[in-house]
Amino acid sequence: MAPKDDSLARRVLKGDIRATAKLIRLVDDNDPEALPELAALYPHTGAAHVIGITGSPGVGKSTIVDKIVGKFREDGKTVGILAVDPTSPFTGGAILGDRIRMQRHFLDSGVFIRSMATRGQFGGLTRSTADAVVALDAMGKDAIIIETVGVGQDEVDIAHSAHTTVLVTIPGMGDDIQAIKAGLMEIGDLFVVNKSDREGAGKTVRELQFMLHMSSERYQESGWEPPIIQTIGVAEQGIDDLYQEILRHREYLKYLDKNELKRRERLKIKRQLFELLKEGVVNEIMKKIGGDEVLDGIVNDILDRKSDPYSANAELLKRISGSA
Amino acid sequence: MAPKDDSLARRVLKGDIRATAKLIRLVDDNDPEALPELAALYPHTGAAHVIGITGSPGVGKSTIVDKIVGKFREDGKTVGILAVDPTSPFTGGAILGDRIRMQRHFLDSGVFIRSMATRGQFGGLTRSTADAVVALDAMGKDAIIIETVGVGQDEVDIAHSAHTTVLVTIPGMGDDIQAIKAGLMEIGDLFVVNKSDREGAGKTVRELQFMLHMSSERYQESGWEPPIIQTIGVAEQGIDDLYQEILRHREYLKYLDKNELKRRERLKIKRQLFELLKEGVVNEIMKKIGGDEVLDGIVNDILDRKSDPYSANAELLKRISGSA
Repeated sequence: MAPKDDSLARRVLKGDIRATAKLIRLVDDNDPEALPELAALYPHTGAAHVIGITGSPGVGKSTIVDKIVGKFREDGKTVGILAVDPTSPFTGGAILGDRIRMQRHFLDSGVFIRSMATRGQFGGLTRSTADAVVALDAMGKDAIIIETVGVGQDEVDIAHSAHTTVLVTIPGMGDDIQAIKAGLMEIGDLFVVNKSDREGAGKTVRELQFMLHMSSERYQESGWEPPIIQTIGVAEQGIDDLYQEILRHREYLKYLDKNELKRRERLKIKRQLFELLKEGVVNEIMKKIGGDEVLDGIVNDILDRKSDPYSANAELLKRISGSA
Repeated sequence: MAPKDDSLARRVLKGDIRATAKLIRLVDDNDPEALPELAALYPHTGAAHVIGITGSPGVGKSTIVDKIVGKFREDGKTVGILAVDPTSPFTGGAILGDRIRMQRHFLDSGVFIRSMATRGQFGGLTRSTADAVVALDAMGKDAIIIETVGVGQDEVDIAHSAHTTVLVTIPGMGDDIQAIKAGLMEIGDLFVVNKSDREGAGKTVRELQFMLHMSSERYQESGWEPPIIQTIGVAEQGIDDLYQEILRHREYLKYLDKNELKRRERLKIKRQLFELLKEGVVNEIMKKIGGDEVLDGIVNDILDRKSDPYSANAELLKRISGSA
């Protein structure tokens, strides 16, 4: 689909900041107006390096993001940042000090920062973040950083959609290491032990090494062994190492076997399509069952134990199929 | 629907542990066999007190849960525990020490512990947890404790389905307080500052008080002002206070205005129904579009930029409506 001359899509392709901001707002509001624009932009995507940075609250993700953005800027690269973290300084709950910390980038036209807020009835955060990546990619950003909190499934899903995923932890968070062990490990391409001047940094590194060693077979197959980088974000220590490793992972991906690369891209597309379908279908359902009022009647029956959620669900599914 | 004599449902109603474990496993596997059993059990639910306990990794949730379970047991009450926390000692990623910590309850037939593992393609965790609550409620458990990590949307949704939600934090987790401010605050009926012997406990309590004060209007309306309880879980300090407040909140709910009570229950039912519908519909879709192979073709077209996720989604939605 070719975008019209004055369309939002056309303006986004020209790098128009206000148009991009508007499109991301539409995406965040789940406004159907966004869809033709995104469809028009999609063929122009694929060039950006999408980097996910995730970790528990308090590990210093925002500082890491801030410093990495600085590195990209020094190299003359433009950056888009999507903050999908309720504790992030970029989002609504931000406190003033944190905002000031990022101020230099707020004033830099080569950096575009947006926070994703929508957590709709059906958890549209994965969908809206993927759509926002399309917008930033089409806009011409060289790197797109998605900052998420690495505990909820939403956040893991979002991290999954990045090319390079960085997991940040700090010394002395044993529970964090357990979480990494329980599932996050698989999505990490790089591991960062931030605040490495704290006691126990060595122990945390050794724990991570041990876990990586346990999965060494998988890494030998893929040809990429996730590095563990010690940083002190606020003092900018280790940041250059981290930046170089991020670039090295990008290079690694470029020279991956074509089939493997396609397999990964396919998985990403599949995920994005599923997220879209899920939302679209639920909207369809609501229309077909007659909207909120009909639903309220059903809910009341369940409340009075005249029905139950399982029978009501079966009934509704039948009705949707039957009346279509 | 009346359960058959030898049905899983009938056995669950008799308090059969193995039958309940089996049903929860079916639920966790998203096995359709579970649905008639759940439908049969549903009329027998509503008596249990469902308590959500949530907080970031490392705040000591598991110890709090352990101690609260002990209190219920002292009172002769039976307890069901659902752990939906990747860092929980009850789940797969557990380390030995944590398991030992809970051992006394593992050996107590009045306590039923299960961890919810499934995080399917469509994030069925909220659905499966709600279903498991139905099973434990029907089984006759007096209290059901859902332990979640309070950051992801899934976990917030799950907490939403409890009658009483306890938010646990510790001193010196400024980011945690920000997260609470950003959204978790609204779901908290009780706030716990655990590890209160640590420096900064007073400051954390004051921050929470300040936030509660900001929302005091809302609380005046509801008639419940969330208490802030200082605990030292491992030393069992403050645990009795917490337990008494949990019971007091239960009493408060009992004497709530009937309409308000119904409004809350209705909201819960609606959420559960939506979760069921979402999964059911996606399964229907997959059947209608012809399964994975057709989907793979579409994904390949998107990969080659012959199509895009937005147009493909619109096309699929049309096909689903049309062919039904």
